[in-house]
Amino acid sequence: MPDYTRMANAIRILAVDSILNAGDGHPGTPLGAADIVTTLYTRHMKFDAADPTWPDRDRFIQSNGHGSMLIYAANHLSGFAKLSIEELKRFRQLNSHCPGHPEYDPEAGIETTTGPLGQGIANAVGMAVAEEKLRAMFGPEICNHYTYALVGDGCLMEGIAQEVVELAGHLKLGHLVFLFDSNHITDDGETYQAISEDQAARFRVAGWHTVECGGHDPDSIDAAIRLAKADPRPSFVICHTEIGHGVPRIANTRSAHGGKLVPEDADEARALLEWEHAPFVIPEDVLKPWREAGRRGNASRVAWQKRLEAADPERKAEFERLVLGKLPEGYEAVLADRKAAYAEARPTQPGVATSGEILDALSDAIPELVSGAPDLEAATRHKRRLEAFTAENRNGRYLHYGVREFAMGSMMNGMAAHRGVIPFGITFLVFSDYERHAIRMAALMGLPVIFGFSHDSIGIGRNGPTHQPVEYLASLRAIPNLTVFRPADAVEAVECWELALANRTGPSAMVYSRQPIPAVRAEAGAENACALGAYVLAAASGKRRATLFATGSEVQIALAARETLEAQGVPTAVVSVPCWERFEQQEPAYRAEVIGRGTARVAVEAAVGLGWERFIGEDGSFIGMSTFGASAPEDELFEHFGITPEAVVGSVLRALDTGSTATAELAG
Amino acid sequence: MPDYTRMANAIRILAVDSILNAGDGHPGTPLGAADIVTTLYTRHMKFDAADPTWPDRDRFIQSNGHGSMLIYAANHLSGFAKLSIEELKRFRQLNSHCPGHPEYDPEAGIETTTGPLGQGIANAVGMAVAEEKLRAMFGPEICNHYTYALVGDGCLMEGIAQEVVELAGHLKLGHLVFLFDSNHITDDGETYQAISEDQAARFRVAGWHTVECGGHDPDSIDAAIRLAKADPRPSFVICHTEIGHGVPRIANTRSAHGGKLVPEDADEARALLEWEHAPFVIPEDVLKPWREAGRRGNASRVAWQKRLEAADPERKAEFERLVLGKLPEGYEAVLADRKAAYAEARPTQPGVATSGEILDALSDAIPELVSGAPDLEAATRHKRRLEAFTAENRNGRYLHYGVREFAMGSMMNGMAAHRGVIPFGITFLVFSDYERHAIRMAALMGLPVIFGFSHDSIGIGRNGPTHQPVEYLASLRAIPNLTVFRPADAVEAVECWELALANRTGPSAMVYSRQPIPAVRAEAGAENACALGAYVLAAASGKRRATLFATGSEVQIALAARETLEAQGVPTAVVSVPCWERFEQQEPAYRAEVIGRGTARVAVEAAVGLGWERFIGEDGSFIGMSTFGASAPEDELFEHFGITPEAVVGSVLRALDTGSTATAELAG
Repeated sequence: MPDYTRMANAIRILAVDSILNAGDGHPGTPLGAADIVTTLYTRHMKFDAADPTWPDRDRFIQSNGHGSMLIYAANHLSGFAKLSIEELKRFRQLNSHCPGHPEYDPEAGIETTTGPLGQGIANAVGMAVAEEKLRAMFGPEICNHYTYALVGDGCLMEGIAQEVVELAGHLKLGHLVFLFDSNHITDDGETYQAISEDQAARFRVAGWHTVECGGHDPDSIDAAIRLAKADPRPSFVICHTEIGHGVPRIANTRSAHGGKLVPEDADEARALLEWEHAPFVIPEDVLKPWREAGRRGNASRVAWQKRLEAADPERKAEFERLVLGKLPEGYEAVLADRKAAYAEARPTQPGVATSGEILDALSDAIPELVSGAPDLEAATRHKRRLEAFTAENRNGRYLHYGVREFAMGSMMNGMAAHRGVIPFGITFLVFSDYERHAIRMAALMGLPVIFGFSHDSIGIGRNGPTHQPVEYLASLRAIPNLTVFRPADAVEAVECWELALANRTGPSAMVYSRQPIPAVRAEAGAENACALGAYVLAAASGKRRATLFATGSEVQIALAARETLEAQGVPTAVVSVPCWERFEQQEPAYRAEVIGRGTARVAVEAAVGLGWERFIGEDGSFIGMSTFGASAPEDELFEHFGITPEAVVGSVLRALDTGSTATAELAG
Repeated sequence: MPDYTRMANAIRILAVDSILNAGDGHPGTPLGAADIVTTLYTRHMKFDAADPTWPDRDRFIQSNGHGSMLIYAANHLSGFAKLSIEELKRFRQLNSHCPGHPEYDPEAGIETTTGPLGQGIANAVGMAVAEEKLRAMFGPEICNHYTYALVGDGCLMEGIAQEVVELAGHLKLGHLVFLFDSNHITDDGETYQAISEDQAARFRVAGWHTVECGGHDPDSIDAAIRLAKADPRPSFVICHTEIGHGVPRIANTRSAHGGKLVPEDADEARALLEWEHAPFVIPEDVLKPWREAGRRGNASRVAWQKRLEAADPERKAEFERLVLGKLPEGYEAVLADRKAAYAEARPTQPGVATSGEILDALSDAIPELVSGAPDLEAATRHKRRLEAFTAENRNGRYLHYGVREFAMGSMMNGMAAHRGVIPFGITFLVFSDYERHAIRMAALMGLPVIFGFSHDSIGIGRNGPTHQPVEYLASLRAIPNLTVFRPADAVEAVECWELALANRTGPSAMVYSRQPIPAVRAEAGAENACALGAYVLAAASGKRRATLFATGSEVQIALAARETLEAQGVPTAVVSVPCWERFEQQEPAYRAEVIGRGTARVAVEAAVGLGWERFIGEDGSFIGMSTFGASAPEDELFEHFGITPEAVVGSVLRALDTGSTATAELAG
């Protein structure tokens, strides 16, 4: 039997040396949880470091990502090629595979980006859902693995933790195991300052199996994990540990969390742990069992591969398509049909109703599409004929998240990172704030999650300012690598869906009106006009003197204003701007042509104007919001806030009169 | 004894008629929880509708704000003058005191804005903290009241609920009572779809007292509230109710949540409830006991007023100052001293360290200042010599929130709405997303909460992109009525604090660097330069040819670039822009002078460029971020992302060469 404690000490020493080498880092977790991870990797985890992305591998998420040297050291020791000893020496250096916090890199055994607390375990719950889903679709011979997440006190205090703990218990995700690094210390010091709950009791109330173990005793940890795997409920394994274990100066103190190490700490750790080797030198007696652990899933993988080869070819091909993230044949035709139907029917209907119809059609075409709306099934119209995914029915494709937006966002990230399902989740735009950090994480990781948002402006009317987004379009547009779509009608909505599905390197936000909006697109051929981000929807009848920019429900206002202006002899173009990010990517010449410098430029959007100057320039006018909304019928609100064709016309005429639209009061 | 059920039915009928009159609304809660609120108002709540803002009143928060007709009807019936029967008829109309969701209006008995679920109860927990704090400061004869919050299934599913439930239990907030309208129905239908927890057990684990009662039985509710008040722990009163009680068609169905009512519903309710009166007519036998309930706190209030009058005059004056929200004499002098000291010493230090020093000084000068940092006490340097507010020590002024940012934000809103304390809370800027919706609510309510944020850019270095804000300045600037400050040095930091404290009609965000930043202000007289929002920090030596805009840690970069440009014969001004919102409020002439059209304009900020066009125009250059950051030492990152004096100089020279800075690639 290998000396597990000595193997764990290899993690400890690597962590201490790497942190000293980098200048800073968080030593407490790698020191405290080294035994947990060593036991997990050597005696339970089904993985093969030689094939890190094998689809049926067990997933391990270090949710307390600040202690990143733990996973880097463990993955180096177990033989992930990307995490060579040279990379460990480059911990926290530019372009290292060992950045300050773990960053999504399945090739390196990093299943998700962690650091912002609570989200790693939420991702894990999403992964466990994806695993159940694929198991239901393909059978346990193709998909049958566990998701393990290491979690600290900090993660458990975040509200999102409760959201996903409740959901995991409710959904009886039996292949999910949380390993709680319970050391009673956070950055502020002893946890009694901020928490007095019995965590085991809390998890039991939520329907989890719980078990406790000595977190520095490999056999005790092993026994607890065995019990966890055997139980049909999700399991919460409480590992009693000492933070900073192995470095006497900081052990069991708050300094261990993120405090600086000094060279003497390494000496004292070496003395205490009887480790005689130089920094970054791992003796063969330790490396060998670690490398064996790194291949412990090899036999399973080979057997799995055989089962997959032996499977029905269609089933095999379908599984491979899913895990590669390829869309099925035929989905484009479904979208093309929808587009043609909308172009023909020219419906006036709520943007969110259109989105629901598109999702209906896509759900038939894309079996891996999984959707949900946190307690807004009816309002967002996105459940329809989908069955619910429940503890009893893993074939369901609609998740009842409950009123838990952040859980939804972060679970979707976990599903996308797991691969095999395409998550879509929709809520009111005003609640995107609740899941906002999950959107950021999807963008940072480059995950193809589609975040839907309805009820996108004062157009919701009487529910009032608490439910009326004003600042949200700007704040979503501010997130790098997030593509924000706000379609103006049903045809644009189909085009935007097509672009969102094609976007495999980052998330998309789909923003819809609640109120009915008319068809605005006259032409709807094979070309995807929205791909340009902004395009001339209605050209000026002569030499263009005015350019009106609008998105979503305000495009109709721009079109109405154009009619008036044209009637008054002002050749006016209307530019629909469904997607700023895509427009930024176009050639300068195209952008210049669309933007029309030298014309009177007015933008209209029922939101704050932040950023619109890039379309209208310093002398243009913005017609929109500069305050929060109000509770009143929606038509009255557009009048009240002056978002009307008359206001647009007035701005243009003043601009042409004075040579500039001088009142460019951009708000927000 | 009044007929409590008939009194409750008055709420039901008013709600049904008002919702029918408005065209929509959420009937389920007013119908289902009418008995709870009637019992609370008539037999427990200490309030006087004739003096709605009496400081020692009990607070009632309807956290499930969608059912707003409940609180409007109850407050109308109990005699709040602002909520006349005419206002109820204007439910959901423009400028009504009865908007779709309850909006903060203490004169109308609306203690906080609710609707976004989970935050009402979080506000309540903040109010209970403020009550404990004031009781400790002034004694129970001056402050001694309860906070009651009505809460539904939806609120309890939100993560923030768990955060504040844990904290309230931990802090033993005995004057806090949650009344759970437990009807097992949400918008999606029966709650079993999304939750299977025993809520009572969950609260007990968190240290709460729990008790159950029949939610349509006034005596049962009364008995439960009595037990709740008698218990030294916060209490969770589970009231078993039927949603939509009284309207047969929708009772106990999801349609009750927010579905449309039809006129027949009113007829059927009248028949069932034996209510014979026309819409908006309340018979005297019902109105009289309701109006008596509305004055049931009158005797207490008169007695309280006498105690206050009899109190030590200084203590009385101090209490009155606090509840009026007036700052104490002398605080300006403390700030002036700090400013003079910084101007003299010209320290190079982290922005967040400066903020900690300022808070230290202010904490001595402003006894009602209550601060906290969610498990970032050391990193944000804001605890220092303050004692912790704990279950045992209500004199403490530092709240250990634990890793619960959203709880902090929303509790601060509750404290500010309660009045008597000035809340300040700080976390890393990247975690402002977690509390973002609380910031929005503070802005919407116009509450003077000060939200602190440190670690404000890639300047944090090695912790990497998960902890490096990039999109946050833009997304905070997008929020109406939020004033965002990003000071460039210690002198500016003092000035910004002065402005934030003076801002009584909305929240302020204070954004600080983690890395040391040098002093940039040469002059620091009595005038507050930051009050202008943007000002010429370093004038051009001759006729200005270039204008450099910067904020925070990037001002030093602009100054360095200016030196080079001046040396090369390009007269260059540096404009420091600590606060966009204040700059927008300046006179056009001043703004034009600062902005310097016609000069080569470059803005530099280590963040996305969204919105900077309003300073630099379409032809200006922005030097900043267009992607997420990276993990590396901070100096390397500024080089790596090209945020350097050299880049600024290059942009200016190219612009002067070509007549425009053509590469205005604004990202984000």
